Amino acid sequence: MSILAVGSIAFDSIVTPAGRAENVLGGSATYFSLSASYFTDVRVVAVVGDDFTAEHENILKKRGVDTRGIERAKGKTFRWGGKYIENLNEAKTDFTELNVFERFQPRIPAEYMGSKFLFLGNIHPSLQAAVRREMNSVRLTGGDTMNYWIQGTRKELTETLKLINVLLINDGEAKMLAGESNLPRAANKVLAMGPHALVIKHGEYGATIFFREGAFGIGRHPFRAPALPLDEVKDPTGAGDSFAGGFMGYLASQEELNREVLKRALFYGGVMGSFAVERFGTERLQSLTREEIDSRFQIFRELTHLE
Amino acid sequence: MSILAVGSIAFDSIVTPAGRAENVLGGSATYFSLSASYFTDVRVVAVVGDDFTAEHENILKKRGVDTRGIERAKGKTFRWGGKYIENLNEAKTDFTELNVFERFQPRIPAEYMGSKFLFLGNIHPSLQAAVRREMNSVRLTGGDTMNYWIQGTRKELTETLKLINVLLINDGEAKMLAGESNLPRAANKVLAMGPHALVIKHGEYGATIFFREGAFGIGRHPFRAPALPLDEVKDPTGAGDSFAGGFMGYLASQEELNREVLKRALFYGGVMGSFAVERFGTERLQSLTREEIDSRFQIFRELTHLE
Repeated sequence: MSILAVGSIAFDSIVTPAGRAENVLGGSATYFSLSASYFTDVRVVAVVGDDFTAEHENILKKRGVDTRGIERAKGKTFRWGGKYIENLNEAKTDFTELNVFERFQPRIPAEYMGSKFLFLGNIHPSLQAAVRREMNSVRLTGGDTMNYWIQGTRKELTETLKLINVLLINDGEAKMLAGESNLPRAANKVLAMGPHALVIKHGEYGATIFFREGAFGIGRHPFRAPALPLDEVKDPTGAGDSFAGGFMGYLASQEELNREVLKRALFYGGVMGSFAVERFGTERLQSLTREEIDSRFQIFRELTHLE
Repeated sequence: MSILAVGSIAFDSIVTPAGRAENVLGGSATYFSLSASYFTDVRVVAVVGDDFTAEHENILKKRGVDTRGIERAKGKTFRWGGKYIENLNEAKTDFTELNVFERFQPRIPAEYMGSKFLFLGNIHPSLQAAVRREMNSVRLTGGDTMNYWIQGTRKELTETLKLINVLLINDGEAKMLAGESNLPRAANKVLAMGPHALVIKHGEYGATIFFREGAFGIGRHPFRAPALPLDEVKDPTGAGDSFAGGFMGYLASQEELNREVLKRALFYGGVMGSFAVERFGTERLQSLTREEIDSRFQIFRELTHLE
């Protein structure tokens, strides 16, 4: 079933110990869409400026992503610059130019209205909520957020969390959102705010999914997917959105949402995140094959599998 | 087969967010021995002072640990005090009184000489090497070290690493030892220094074992064991030595060292570490049953197991 992704499209300038890239296509909607496109049909809603060319759009179109929801506004596309120096898990921002993204009001094309899966990328929680409320067809909503919204717009975020079925955030965000430093206790507090499931991403250590009592009818034992220890991490930008794309994309490709499917989705999330970081920007996500993806899925499975 | 453990016996004073404990029995040899005692026969070599009573010794004896190698010296036993405040993975040391441990010269009783497995706890690398050289019977040597020795006695440590088959350290120690921030690359550098296998402990995220090419005849793909997300961590002291006790204890209990046995050992390490932190000091390790241990092993297995 098709997924609608709402988020940012950006041009990123990135410095890492492995090198640098200038003005490469990025943004949460871009990474998510490319990643999910290996599993299901993806539709995207985002805003870009005059500097977003047909060539940029073709990166998405080549992967079959429906780009009719990309709005063109006067001005420049969102730009971000950052460095990963000592800690590959955390970028130091050099500059953020919101540009056309500052006044982004997501508009859902009529053709997208039947979407059954929705991913709300990391944008203002009120915009996330507005999109969700507009989409009556949606069966499952995934969402992301960040420290900026947790601290600055907690009231709005609290409302939005009631509309999100699966929240995907990292350890630090989960602890901040819950005001609790123990991870399982933080997870329970976040689940009490609305989501049926909470995916906590641990960077190079993988991810854990926690379930609310009774959610999906599958019991509440958490499940953890390890990540592959990677020899080479070129650029961590977009790892989280690529994870979300693999996770949501796999869910959308399945008939039924049971525990085994959610577990596999967590592994596919880790697989897509691990590919994303192997090259700068979206390069690696543009040219994968499903065979490469499934072969890495097997490696991840073997990584913790006991006979 | 029996394991000989060499390390410290200490009295610890610990403050954590869950409470405090004063002068409780601790030290690397204590945690290791109690943990390994659920899997095999354990013999311990350590030094204590006049303040180490029969009651203290009974904690080990009750678990069947052979305490004939505990030397009694004039003076006080090693004492350590520390706090875990914001970060449960790292203690802030309040005081270290080496006392009789300062002049510790491990003496191996004749009765221990046939030991097939040896664990060298976190002591001066030259002492570790001296013990290993004395023990001709040993088939497999596990060892630990820490930042203090990596920085202060690198030359001696480099010699000792050639005598250690499985080194068990944490992420930060592995990166410091290798001078390399990427974990798999750091692992390869450490393996080039001598050990056939390197276990890197990730705290709440589990542990990964890396193998040297050709070691144990099992291929060099790493293997990762997750840790259980714990609701309650009362006291992280001794988690690493308890991990080592579960890992080495399980290995010593098996006929053969193949890949599957090493994988299971990594899981048992995580299981014993997870029990250790549930109570202050060694309390939880004193009263476990093998059934409780195997039941948690199954939970850990389920935590990442795909059908």
